[in-house]
Amino acid sequence: MQKIAILGIGQTRIGEHWDESLRDIAGKAAFAALQDAGVEKVDALYVGNMLSPLINGQNQLGTFLADWIGLWHQEAVKVEAACGSGGAAFRAALMAVASGEVESALVVGIEKMSDKTSHDITASLATAADADYEADQGVSFVGLNALVMQRYMHEFGWKHSDFAPFSINAHANAMHNPFARLHEKITAEKFEGSAMVATPINLLDASPTGDGAAAAVIVPAEKVASLKGKPRILVAASASNTDTIAIHSRKDPLFLSAAYKSAKRCYEIAGVGPKDLDVFEVHDAFTIMAALSLEACGFAERGKGVQLGLDNEITPRGRIPICTRGGLKARGHPVGATGMYQIVEVTQQLRGECGETQVDGARIGMAQNIGGSGASIITHILKVD
Amino acid sequence: MQKIAILGIGQTRIGEHWDESLRDIAGKAAFAALQDAGVEKVDALYVGNMLSPLINGQNQLGTFLADWIGLWHQEAVKVEAACGSGGAAFRAALMAVASGEVESALVVGIEKMSDKTSHDITASLATAADADYEADQGVSFVGLNALVMQRYMHEFGWKHSDFAPFSINAHANAMHNPFARLHEKITAEKFEGSAMVATPINLLDASPTGDGAAAAVIVPAEKVASLKGKPRILVAASASNTDTIAIHSRKDPLFLSAAYKSAKRCYEIAGVGPKDLDVFEVHDAFTIMAALSLEACGFAERGKGVQLGLDNEITPRGRIPICTRGGLKARGHPVGATGMYQIVEVTQQLRGECGETQVDGARIGMAQNIGGSGASIITHILKVD
Repeated sequence: MQKIAILGIGQTRIGEHWDESLRDIAGKAAFAALQDAGVEKVDALYVGNMLSPLINGQNQLGTFLADWIGLWHQEAVKVEAACGSGGAAFRAALMAVASGEVESALVVGIEKMSDKTSHDITASLATAADADYEADQGVSFVGLNALVMQRYMHEFGWKHSDFAPFSINAHANAMHNPFARLHEKITAEKFEGSAMVATPINLLDASPTGDGAAAAVIVPAEKVASLKGKPRILVAASASNTDTIAIHSRKDPLFLSAAYKSAKRCYEIAGVGPKDLDVFEVHDAFTIMAALSLEACGFAERGKGVQLGLDNEITPRGRIPICTRGGLKARGHPVGATGMYQIVEVTQQLRGECGETQVDGARIGMAQNIGGSGASIITHILKVD
Repeated sequence: MQKIAILGIGQTRIGEHWDESLRDIAGKAAFAALQDAGVEKVDALYVGNMLSPLINGQNQLGTFLADWIGLWHQEAVKVEAACGSGGAAFRAALMAVASGEVESALVVGIEKMSDKTSHDITASLATAADADYEADQGVSFVGLNALVMQRYMHEFGWKHSDFAPFSINAHANAMHNPFARLHEKITAEKFEGSAMVATPINLLDASPTGDGAAAAVIVPAEKVASLKGKPRILVAASASNTDTIAIHSRKDPLFLSAAYKSAKRCYEIAGVGPKDLDVFEVHDAFTIMAALSLEACGFAERGKGVQLGLDNEITPRGRIPICTRGGLKARGHPVGATGMYQIVEVTQQLRGECGETQVDGARIGMAQNIGGSGASIITHILKVD
């Protein structure tokens, strides 16, 4: 694929934005990215979103947003892969630019979830699972992840408290991210004492949903030889892979094989390995997912992902810093937007804009966005040119 | 963009398939296309669908379908642009192949609408309109089109009966399409006597929804030098354009400017004009949309699209044959699948497989898929190599 550069990024703070509409939030991130890129117009708009038909009564979000931000008579489309929608939209935009059909693209991940009750949100999130064989049997999305975590603890002998470092690191990092939903440092005691959601997942294993949008402008790399002082950030690799949608259909429900395959493909394309990565924005929708992602992407052996947390290797000063801006756990998880938050955050790391949680000398970073319980996995490696 | 060929096509009959699931229907069309293409596997799957989150409780339809048809560990994603989802998925797949990221792709348009009440379907279809400024004010999707038709009749002096030829042609052609939902010839009298839905749109102005799927396999043209006797069908042009999502925001609600722009771009890329087209599969969700599409794409002057029907120019023997397999009106309109039915049908015409409604010597055909009330428009020109 042709070399593509990230020309600009933008994001909104994640929260319960009762006074802002779907339009307002998506538009803010879009304008921030266009302004950061120093352009007023792009050829095409790709929107990542999962729930707007169910929560906001709005479909064709591509055209909807193009209309709102004044990109009239440009191409626009929505891409959906459950919670992997943001990453999937980014990949679709990359391929559009690489095909030569469009010369520049704006990608916006957006979700506005506060407008419905928790009951509705739980039902809506269950559409990421298999409707016939999972959701219709009454298992919620957190329930599915709880089954996986339970099995993992049983199989590999970990205690629930061993997962605490994932949550503690995410919350500590989010303290320094003005766009994060949660600004609240937590301790191991607080983690263990937190309310149970679905055994063994408690409130501090689980990421909060929310309203938010994140965006990026991409162009062929050759068009941005110099970027007024800022380092040029390139997309070094992009790959997407899928697994069975129902967890029970997998030979091994404790191995994210689509994460393994999409990361492996990215490593091949970029000519790097896990050891070369300076930062890794993982899809820590639940602490168990952080552990499984680290294992699938080659940072730990099977069943050992939890050890990386216990060894302090996942903090900004560790061997493989994750959730450097708070991750899904504390930055927040507006589902269809999350993949674009990850792209924006890796870009911030490579630009050296992360202050207290800046990874020293970060030059290569990976973002991995997951839809469903490991069913749709989209991985990107970014690098400083 | 790189030259791309359509290697295989498949479709299911449109109807109320109470005994078949979303999986079953999409899988049938997918397998038919793979079989027609003579391949067992492709690199990636692109699914066009609008309503599965609302009607079937299922999201991430790309991965869902890849899992069902055994395309394990391939890339898969859903693309959505309301009723333009099928065409938008086809265009996304073209760009993916043209980018070099995937070498072959399966595109499936699927919608399964029978599982909910008419009330739910009407509410679901309204998500194609502007939720804040149209749907929330109580105007349904057919209501919006009725306003446009009313205005058109007032502005240009047409009677309701002048629209009859669109419906009569579609129904006549569908008689010879085994995949069509309606096999029922109609007359001008029947058209005028049909039950009113939303003045001036009556039942025979409006397309029936339904359950159905249509699919195609695409590959770089250079990979299919010979196709065992069948003509090689190439994608000569692809373009997408958008308009404001709300009709009231347009300077002229009677001109489909996004259709004009996407068709114009296709003509430029393919190096052809309206006169060169042998067949045109229009998005006749309502008779008024057929008239407006013909005008926007250069087959008639503004306000004169209806005349083409009255002059018998839209039949398979006319100047610009439309709805040659029944169109949305009689083949049926399973919304997210429609764009792929159009691609399949134009391919059938170029292959000379349309029997009684075959357009003699058809070598160039256009398919135009519309999302919303002219908001998302995706146009493709196919040709015999």
